[in-house]
Formats: sequence, C-alpha cells, structure tokens
Amino acid sequence: MEYSLRILGSGSAKPSINRFQTSQVLQMRERQFLIDCGEGTQTRLRQYNSRTARLNHIFISHLHGDHCLGLVGLISTFGMLGRTNDLVIHSHPDLERVIGEQIKFFAADSLFKVIFEPFNPETSEIIFEDKAVTVRTLPLKHTVPTCGFLFEEKQLPRHINKEMADAFNVPIAFYKELKDGIDFITPDGEVVENRRLTTEPTARKRVAYMSDTAYSEKNLQWIEGVDLLYHESTYLSDIDIIKLKTRKHSSAAQAAELAKKAGVKKLILGHYSSTYTSSKPFQDEARTIFLESYAANDGDTFEF
Amino acid sequence: MEYSLRILGSGSAKPSINRFQTSQVLQMRERQFLIDCGEGTQTRLRQYNSRTARLNHIFISHLHGDHCLGLVGLISTFGMLGRTNDLVIHSHPDLERVIGEQIKFFAADSLFKVIFEPFNPETSEIIFEDKAVTVRTLPLKHTVPTCGFLFEEKQLPRHINKEMADAFNVPIAFYKELKDGIDFITPDGEVVENRRLTTEPTARKRVAYMSDTAYSEKNLQWIEGVDLLYHESTYLSDIDIIKLKTRKHSSAAQAAELAKKAGVKKLILGHYSSTYTSSKPFQDEARTIFLESYAANDGDTFEF
Repeated sequence: MEYSLRILGSGSAKPSINRFQTSQVLQMRERQFLIDCGEGTQTRLRQYNSRTARLNHIFISHLHGDHCLGLVGLISTFGMLGRTNDLVIHSHPDLERVIGEQIKFFAADSLFKVIFEPFNPETSEIIFEDKAVTVRTLPLKHTVPTCGFLFEEKQLPRHINKEMADAFNVPIAFYKELKDGIDFITPDGEVVENRRLTTEPTARKRVAYMSDTAYSEKNLQWIEGVDLLYHESTYLSDIDIIKLKTRKHSSAAQAAELAKKAGVKKLILGHYSSTYTSSKPFQDEARTIFLESYAANDGDTFEF
Repeated sequence: MEYSLRILGSGSAKPSINRFQTSQVLQMRERQFLIDCGEGTQTRLRQYNSRTARLNHIFISHLHGDHCLGLVGLISTFGMLGRTNDLVIHSHPDLERVIGEQIKFFAADSLFKVIFEPFNPETSEIIFEDKAVTVRTLPLKHTVPTCGFLFEEKQLPRHINKEMADAFNVPIAFYKELKDGIDFITPDGEVVENRRLTTEPTARKRVAYMSDTAYSEKNLQWIEGVDLLYHESTYLSDIDIIKLKTRKHSSAAQAAELAKKAGVKKLILGHYSSTYTSSKPFQDEARTIFLESYAANDGDTFEF
C-alpha cells in the first residue's frame, strides 16, 4: 500500500478492553512515520506484522502518557533487534528530560542514536522536510501544550508528453526543467510553452492528524482539502457540554463539523473514551454531518 | 478465589503476537501483590477485570524493560481513577532514579504517594512483613542483578476444639493463648496439654516466583515444598547450550528439574521467547521430569 494510515491504538487515557492507546503508522510511498506512541505500540507493531526498517521519525503530539509511554519499550526493543538507523523524535521540549534517563538505561547497548528534535507547540511550523515530504505542526487546544501534524507531499513533477517533446526535438538533458514547468526554447528561438510538452503532475497527498483537542477552527487554512483527516472524538455529543469543554476533547459531531468546513476527502475518528464499548455510534453521529466519516478500530488501515 | 496466581503476561523481552510481557497478580486471601509490571500491565488488569483496590505492593524482580516498563502507565492511570492508597514498589535501588522523574511528570495530580522500597539484590532477605504474610527475596542468576520472591503465610493459629475447651472450663479470655499452642492450667493446677484442646492449624500457603534466571539451586532451601513455583522457561532444551548460558535463562526441563528437587506441589512455566508460538511443548518437556507442570498463557489463573 503506497499511501495508508494504520491504526495501532484507537483508545484514550484509561485502558480499555479492546483498544490500545494512541499510535498510528503513516505510510507515504517509501516513507514511514509513527504518530504518537502509547503504551503497547511495540506489541501492536508486532501483532500487525509492521515493518519498521524505514521508520526513522516519530511525532509525539503531547506529553500525556497515552500518547508517549510506549517510546521507551519500543526503543529498547529496536536495540535488541539490532537496529542501526538513528531515530528522530519530534516532540515538546520536555520529552527528553522526562524519558531521556530511561532510554539511556533501557537501551544502553543500542547501535543507533535517539535524537530529540523539540518543537515549539505555540506556533505552526515546518518541523520535517526532505525532498518529497514536509511535516508541519498544527497547534491544538488541549489541557497541556499539544500539536497535531500535517504531512504533505511536495508538488510532484509534471509528466512529460514524450510524443510532443520528440516533435520539438527537446533534448533529454532538458527533461528535468520540463518536469519543473519551464518552457522550452528551440535553437531557432521559438518559445514552446511547457503545458504543450507536459501534463499535470499526479496530485500530491496530504494527511492531517489532530489529537487531542477541543473543537477549533484555527488550523482550517492548513487542512483544507486534505486526503485524510484523523480527528479525535473522545465523546459522543450527548456528553455533558461542561465536561467536554473542561477536558478539552471533541465529540464525533465536532470532528465531522471541522471535516466538512475544511472540505477534506475522508475523516477518520478515534481516541474514544473507555466508557464506550463500540465505535459504531461515533461513525453514525459523524455521518449525519459528514458522510465520508469512518470510525477507526485497532488494526484498521485506511488507504488514500 | 482465596489463593490464586493470575498471569497477566507470559512473554519475554521481544514483543510477541499473543503474549504480553511479564506481570502477575498473586492473591493470598485478602492480600494482593503485583509481581513484575511489563508494558501493558494496566491493559491486562482492565481486560481481565482485576480489582486493584487492595493492590498496595508491587515487587519488581529486575530492571529489564519487560519486567517494569508498565509501571509509569499503571501509576498514571491509578491517579486518574482517583486512587488514594499509597503504593509501595519493592525493587533494585536504581529504579527510583530511572523512573522517578516520569512518575512525577505523568502522575503529578495523584492523590496517593509512590514509595520506593529498595532491596539489596545480593542477599536473601525479608522485604515485606505484616501480621499474616512475609515476602523474602531469592537472589537469582541473570545478566543484571535479579531477585525472585517467596511469598509465605505465617504459621496460622491452631483450631480450638470447642467441646474439649468447654469440658475443661477454659475461659474465652485464654483462647488466644490456646490458638498459639500454649497449654492450659486449671485452677487446681492441672496442666492440660494444648494438643488435647486444639487441632492442627490449616497449612500455611507458600508461593515462589523465579524469573529471570539461569538454572540455580542456591534457593532450594527456601522453596522446598512450596504450593506453587513459578519458574521462567524462556527456551526449550533443544536450545544451543551456549546461548542458554550466555543469556542466563532456563529451559523448561531445567525449571522442572528444580521443581522436582524442591518437591514443590505445582510448577508454572512462563517467560517464553517470542520465537515460540505455542506453550504446549514447554509443558510437554517439563512433564517428562515433573508431572505437575503447567505452561501458563496470558489470562490463566492458577489456584493453590
């Protein structure tokens, strides 16, 4: 699966019978990102037979236990399995202080380095970039500093129309420029517009992750039209409104409302309170507002 | 169940598909002890619907991740659930340094205290005692300092033979002495031997826990005749002998050999390497040496 989001845990803070705590694997072509790492993440990776050779970056939304207490065990196990690639953890600056000592102790013999890359949770910024993908933080509204993440492919190259390129005798050495949208000038000085020689690039993929958070529209500008929006829905909307506001979580209806306003292609729900036994009512509630809503369970994979 | 051992995790260091890492709940009448606390212990407690109101003491055998990385999550969740009873953790002295910072961070709002009670892993000593039970450390042979534990009820009081006590006009005020085995002297100075007035007390229960360890007989004196011996059996005996010795673990046959020598009533096996998919061969191997061998799986409860 070239593009997929695998749900390792769809539960929230209190342990539940059939859900692990929050963690997900995002696959974007050959890139693999781990988003949050609740207790038991390493067990789920094993149970779901997930390969982790290319998992070099972990993004931690905030420092509540259900989003990061699986890190030490995962890192310790990576050490035992002989991993050699360095591992970068993007998180609130406090994480290194809080778990650094444990990592030193439990992964003392590891052949790889753990690199903490702290981000400022107050502003939206690009915290990861390589030649194909960028990752941007999306500051959320929770009881502690929290960020969601936006994973975006960069603009992909235009496709060359080989027949037309040949007709105009475009040299192969100029193909890179063609793919970048540059016009071709013939030896006679004639300008051939790029759009005659190429076709539109494949649409780039974009995925947004938003957990944990109260309803907030402040990231609308960033998540507009994304292929996949994962949004927490800890409660159904019959929850006491005071409780919802104090705990700074969202209902399924609120997640759907945001998905609708942002015009996303698909909404994935998760992070259900342990008081609910089924995810079905979450999907039902969300679909009354936004049809392309899907309530995730542990082990689900959503392609996009 | 008055006396039982509940297996929360029967796996070992590397995550396995159907096993959690090591953790067990020992019930001795109204006392409840948690032995080791691998990642996911809180999830298993929830899944198995275990009550934890009386769980006030946790015993950690050694500081490998698969025996203690569930502590922070468990303590954090106890905090969320409003626990008020203090929690005592008996372990190697390094534990507080290694996880203390995390506990402060993730259980900051808890209403209970976490008290670290370090023990010296080099010698066998009593590390817990109340009016009914003592817990003794059993130094093991592993790659890091490790102790097993011996949980023993104290000698229970003798049963009063009411008919005989009445026949000799023993005053009720003297019953406590009778139960303790003291002879009764009548007002006339006649000595009535205690064994005429009482019957033997109920046999006290004794449970030994030994994980992780290479084969070792140095604790034989302590575990003789215990009702239940949990002994690790990470491998089957077809394992390369060098590997077994370097890693300082035991085979099922070795666990059974020790159980036989100690004349225990029942042997429970666990802590299987993730390379094995079934526990059945462990039981089969052990039973060729010691018939009362049982290979544990997650969720099993052994009464004694």
